[in-house]
Amino acid sequence: MPELRQNMATREWVIIATERAKRPEEFVQVHRERIEDRPAWAERCPFCPGNEELDLEQLRIPDRGDWQARVVRNRYPALQDEGERTRRFEGSNCAISGVGHHEVIVESRLHNTCPATETVDEVEHTLRAFQMRGLALREDPRVEHVVYFKNHGATAGASLQHPHAQLLALPVVPYTVRSRMEEARRYFDDHGACAICRMRGEEERQRVRMVIESDWFSAFVPYAAFSPFHLWIIPRRHETSFLMSTPEELRDLAVVLREMLRKIYVGLNDPDYNYVMRSTPEHEHASEYLHWYLSIVPRVTRTAGFELGSGMFINTALPEESAAYLRGITPLSEF
Amino acid sequence: MPELRQNMATREWVIIATERAKRPEEFVQVHRERIEDRPAWAERCPFCPGNEELDLEQLRIPDRGDWQARVVRNRYPALQDEGERTRRFEGSNCAISGVGHHEVIVESRLHNTCPATETVDEVEHTLRAFQMRGLALREDPRVEHVVYFKNHGATAGASLQHPHAQLLALPVVPYTVRSRMEEARRYFDDHGACAICRMRGEEERQRVRMVIESDWFSAFVPYAAFSPFHLWIIPRRHETSFLMSTPEELRDLAVVLREMLRKIYVGLNDPDYNYVMRSTPEHEHASEYLHWYLSIVPRVTRTAGFELGSGMFINTALPEESAAYLRGITPLSEF
Repeated sequence: MPELRQNMATREWVIIATERAKRPEEFVQVHRERIEDRPAWAERCPFCPGNEELDLEQLRIPDRGDWQARVVRNRYPALQDEGERTRRFEGSNCAISGVGHHEVIVESRLHNTCPATETVDEVEHTLRAFQMRGLALREDPRVEHVVYFKNHGATAGASLQHPHAQLLALPVVPYTVRSRMEEARRYFDDHGACAICRMRGEEERQRVRMVIESDWFSAFVPYAAFSPFHLWIIPRRHETSFLMSTPEELRDLAVVLREMLRKIYVGLNDPDYNYVMRSTPEHEHASEYLHWYLSIVPRVTRTAGFELGSGMFINTALPEESAAYLRGITPLSEF
Repeated sequence: MPELRQNMATREWVIIATERAKRPEEFVQVHRERIEDRPAWAERCPFCPGNEELDLEQLRIPDRGDWQARVVRNRYPALQDEGERTRRFEGSNCAISGVGHHEVIVESRLHNTCPATETVDEVEHTLRAFQMRGLALREDPRVEHVVYFKNHGATAGASLQHPHAQLLALPVVPYTVRSRMEEARRYFDDHGACAICRMRGEEERQRVRMVIESDWFSAFVPYAAFSPFHLWIIPRRHETSFLMSTPEELRDLAVVLREMLRKIYVGLNDPDYNYVMRSTPEHEHASEYLHWYLSIVPRVTRTAGFELGSGMFINTALPEESAAYLRGITPLSEF
């Protein structure tokens, strides 16, 4: 019998389609080229060493000598960094000027790599760049919320091959983010506890969906995972904002995130994926009920009219089986 | 300068990326085969005449002689029609048994057609089938909400070529549907008016995003359209549920929906798309603030990590330009 499961933090339902469920092996991608077989340097790539567009540069790590990671303003930004944030009414319609920031994190000097094949240092640089830029951008009074994310592969929305992540600093708090905050507050009212802390505790007790537990993070397939191999990485220390992570936590997250992406890379043969940092709006103060986390979504299935019309998902993999499969994958140090 | 626009009914923001906006022509699809060039009958298609799986049949139109449309239970349903709706707690997690209905509407006897090339009668049969099945299924006390939708083309999630639509009757009200109802109620509290009626009035006044106005429906690109050529068809008479449409309205909707899909078919060269009927949960009574409508989403762009992480969309087309382009497309009676 299929079942509907509810995510206790977001309150969203998902259909776990047990009758149509596929075995984990059925999600292994049939490929095309291997990333490592691409050239390590590409003449026309704006992110390769020697091609740097210096007028766009915001940050480099380290700040002297050869850079290992860089942050640049997006050449074709979705939002513009200059101008006033103004609200305009046209009849009953409301618009806000599109001010904000759209930046790109170049993760590596190498053209032919990705987080799964990067060094831990490289993954850590990406996270550190997110943190440094996030701390800088929240000083901009026009910024209400920052979204940190990565698109890996064409079907996940990546238009350039050189490994890169992105951030968008928005002049509004998105509707979904507001709803989730509201649900978190409501959970706290009802239970006197943070829903995400509760969920982490539950997963650590039940263990069936756990993939990696480190000193500072728990990485698992959520009980109500909305797609096959959907993964959450939750900090074990209750913390509202990703920006407040300690250097030790950031290093640990780099290890865990890389390991998860390596398991996916090896176990599912390099599927396209997105990951996104779900942190807190910039003007929220430390709170007992908001808890940041990182979500990874491999693009191994498609959404259709049902998802569009209901906001609900049909997951054709059992979260417990997805987790067991990933636990069993042990990427060697070299592939 | 880019701008953020808010949908006055859903309260969701979208980034209208004016700087990166493409001209309408740039969304024209490069094709593959034409639907009309496929065989009109396919030996292995379960929906073609002669291959009917009669054990799955729920309805046929007309009920005697050659059928023009049929409704069948999905051979691989996401939900099961037998069993109790039971709620189960596992620690802090909550699940509901996956009971409900998953049905398929076969739109035509022909294998090589789609709503844009179907007759008005065929499109009307699909809508009538939605209505008849919706009225029957809401008698099932386990059913809380019905989602009516169509997936056209592989990237929109269609796995069979023969033209078909679907419905899923759920044992819960999805989170997004509840949020939208809540926003509608709040709008009514603040303004003493239905937000959708207001929006329709605004579009009829401004006219810049209107595509078709008929006796009973207004079809336009919403002010805060979340993707290029995103379209809403709103009934001009305030009505909570699609199921309450009169025969005259249903006929008119068939004409308008078909005309919209023909404009898309011709103007964008048969892009994949989804359409979805946003009706009201089955146990809601007639209400002053809930208003059903139909939404069409051509699949001409991709979503990525930003959309996943924020629930917000970046639209790379200007709604006003998309609407003007579609107004200018006049499909001939024969293509």
